[in-house]
Amino acid sequence: MTENFEFRVLATDGAARRGEITMPRGTIRTPAFMPVGTGGTVKAMYLDQVRDLGSDIILGNTYHLMLRPGAERVARLGGLHEFARWPHPILTDSGGFQVMSLAQLRKITEQGVKFRSHIDGTVYEMSPERSIEIQGLLDSDIQMQLDECTALPAEHKAIEKAMELSLRWAERCKTAFGTQPGRAMFGIVQGGDVPALRERSALALRDLDLKGYAVGGLAVGEPQQVMLDMLEVTNPLLPEMKPRYLMGVGTPDDIVKSVARGIYMFDCVMPTRAGRHGLAYTRRGKINLKNARHAEDHRPLDEESDCPAAREYSRAYLHHLVKSGESLAGMLLTWNNLAYYQSLMADIRSAIEAGRFADRAGEITENWARGDLPAL
Amino acid sequence: MTENFEFRVLATDGAARRGEITMPRGTIRTPAFMPVGTGGTVKAMYLDQVRDLGSDIILGNTYHLMLRPGAERVARLGGLHEFARWPHPILTDSGGFQVMSLAQLRKITEQGVKFRSHIDGTVYEMSPERSIEIQGLLDSDIQMQLDECTALPAEHKAIEKAMELSLRWAERCKTAFGTQPGRAMFGIVQGGDVPALRERSALALRDLDLKGYAVGGLAVGEPQQVMLDMLEVTNPLLPEMKPRYLMGVGTPDDIVKSVARGIYMFDCVMPTRAGRHGLAYTRRGKINLKNARHAEDHRPLDEESDCPAAREYSRAYLHHLVKSGESLAGMLLTWNNLAYYQSLMADIRSAIEAGRFADRAGEITENWARGDLPAL
Repeated sequence: MTENFEFRVLATDGAARRGEITMPRGTIRTPAFMPVGTGGTVKAMYLDQVRDLGSDIILGNTYHLMLRPGAERVARLGGLHEFARWPHPILTDSGGFQVMSLAQLRKITEQGVKFRSHIDGTVYEMSPERSIEIQGLLDSDIQMQLDECTALPAEHKAIEKAMELSLRWAERCKTAFGTQPGRAMFGIVQGGDVPALRERSALALRDLDLKGYAVGGLAVGEPQQVMLDMLEVTNPLLPEMKPRYLMGVGTPDDIVKSVARGIYMFDCVMPTRAGRHGLAYTRRGKINLKNARHAEDHRPLDEESDCPAAREYSRAYLHHLVKSGESLAGMLLTWNNLAYYQSLMADIRSAIEAGRFADRAGEITENWARGDLPAL
Repeated sequence: MTENFEFRVLATDGAARRGEITMPRGTIRTPAFMPVGTGGTVKAMYLDQVRDLGSDIILGNTYHLMLRPGAERVARLGGLHEFARWPHPILTDSGGFQVMSLAQLRKITEQGVKFRSHIDGTVYEMSPERSIEIQGLLDSDIQMQLDECTALPAEHKAIEKAMELSLRWAERCKTAFGTQPGRAMFGIVQGGDVPALRERSALALRDLDLKGYAVGGLAVGEPQQVMLDMLEVTNPLLPEMKPRYLMGVGTPDDIVKSVARGIYMFDCVMPTRAGRHGLAYTRRGKINLKNARHAEDHRPLDEESDCPAAREYSRAYLHHLVKSGESLAGMLLTWNNLAYYQSLMADIRSAIEAGRFADRAGEITENWARGDLPAL
């Protein structure tokens, strides 16, 4: 165990990197996928299961937690790790993204953002400083700067304005965070789908010499190719020897293609949310368990998976649970999906170590394209 | 393992009996509590967890399963044990109770019951013979006769008519069931809150020489004392050396008092349903996790429990999960509740073996009365 927050690269394969982040609460093997633990729980999972799947770190949502149960309350209860029984690393977002997508009557000024809770209408104000304070109260290991994320498509002017504001907020967050050995505060590159704005944002953040860098404002409505183009513009400008994190992404295919462009960390609600909607991610692609073709199919989702949810339950049973709205449907499919995501990350890490990432990415993609087993 | 369905009494303490039912799929230690696995799933639980808590048998609901996924489909998929991954004993009810409480446009004739599915309005007809056929398709180990259950309060005439019809249906079910070594068909005593009708029902069923006997039509709206009075009338008339099962009961207090009156088997949705509504059963009584007194209480539900849900999570966290509507709330509280119910049954069994059931029942009841820990 280290006292400090450190990152090192263990293997290089093209732009892909196999690395590890070490910090007092544990080691994160990269490329890493961080399951989303919205309000102190990865939905429909025991955190022991999440850990057993090979998750080194989970994400907590500052917006949800500040509203309920409240950051000060979490602090009085010993912090988020103690509260949720997850002694391993936690990354928290800044709250900004959910303020934009969930809160009501939000108003952004130079000072910060003012909004009404979507739960009970209470008015909150969140400055960059308050966001960092909240993340500290949650006892978060990796904290994110407050930023303004623009949904795409958007006007150049609006994208630029949000990106420049985010840069000024990054500086205020850095000051507010100060020096905290063993923890990190990451900056967030904005700039929408405009390469010049992405460049400006990346270079200015680089000058701030932060512990890590995220790429934000992607997977917000644009085609995948635009996202990948933006990564190709951004990533070479960010330090190779610091963590690079693509926020809120994505599908297994997004992840493979982003690793190929130099991304080290991911988070996404996709595996957990899809699991609650009858969808299973497998090495043969995405399977919709609502489909009647599964009604009398005794085969498991994937007989070769290490996960009991994938290997031991028939598709017919899963179909029945989904159609009946049983909570076990979400429990089993979320378990399967997170297992698949974490096995994909392990697969990616091994391939980079072996210097055959491009080949392996091709095989994985072919398997998805080949699709599911033929119907019985 | 035995080839046959057998029951033996291992210890006697007043009217309470410690016994065991043996059958090809396993042994049921009595007094037994059977978790309710409505539609092939004990809600919010993995069946492996249900087993690990000491459940020897679960209950399946014929009404739910005949509607979805359908009895013939379950049979094609290898039966309910294979379908739901529960290789141990299963008891199925006859479907009659849920037809009365859930189905639409139901019509009872001498022949059977006709009703519309509450899911999609499809019309079904279920005779005593069809109920037994369905339970056979489900591969149920303990099958129940079709009966008509009267909600209380009710007119003497209506209770008597339903009881007499149930007796005639018991005979038809016995014939339909035939001889099935290793399995059993139980009759159901009806008669509402009228002692003379309960007597008539019990004696007539006894003459049918069935493998086991249930007491039905209780816990349907009457005060607890009426239920206990009816048990005192009924139980002495039922054979001591055959299983005696009180259907749909009940609270921990109902169970202790019914064991004292000679009941060997119980089932109830209470621990599972309460778990999904923020309520925890503990040795200190029932705890409402929605209550604000738990919001900053770092203590677990019960530090002495063997169940991780009771011992390892703070009340504050459980309160947060309940208030946030998180599925983990139902997962943890159902787990806690079934653990408590099964530990209560184990406690009851040991006390009967030790010949101190009345004393232990008194201690258990005092602990409930003493109530929860004082607020922090």
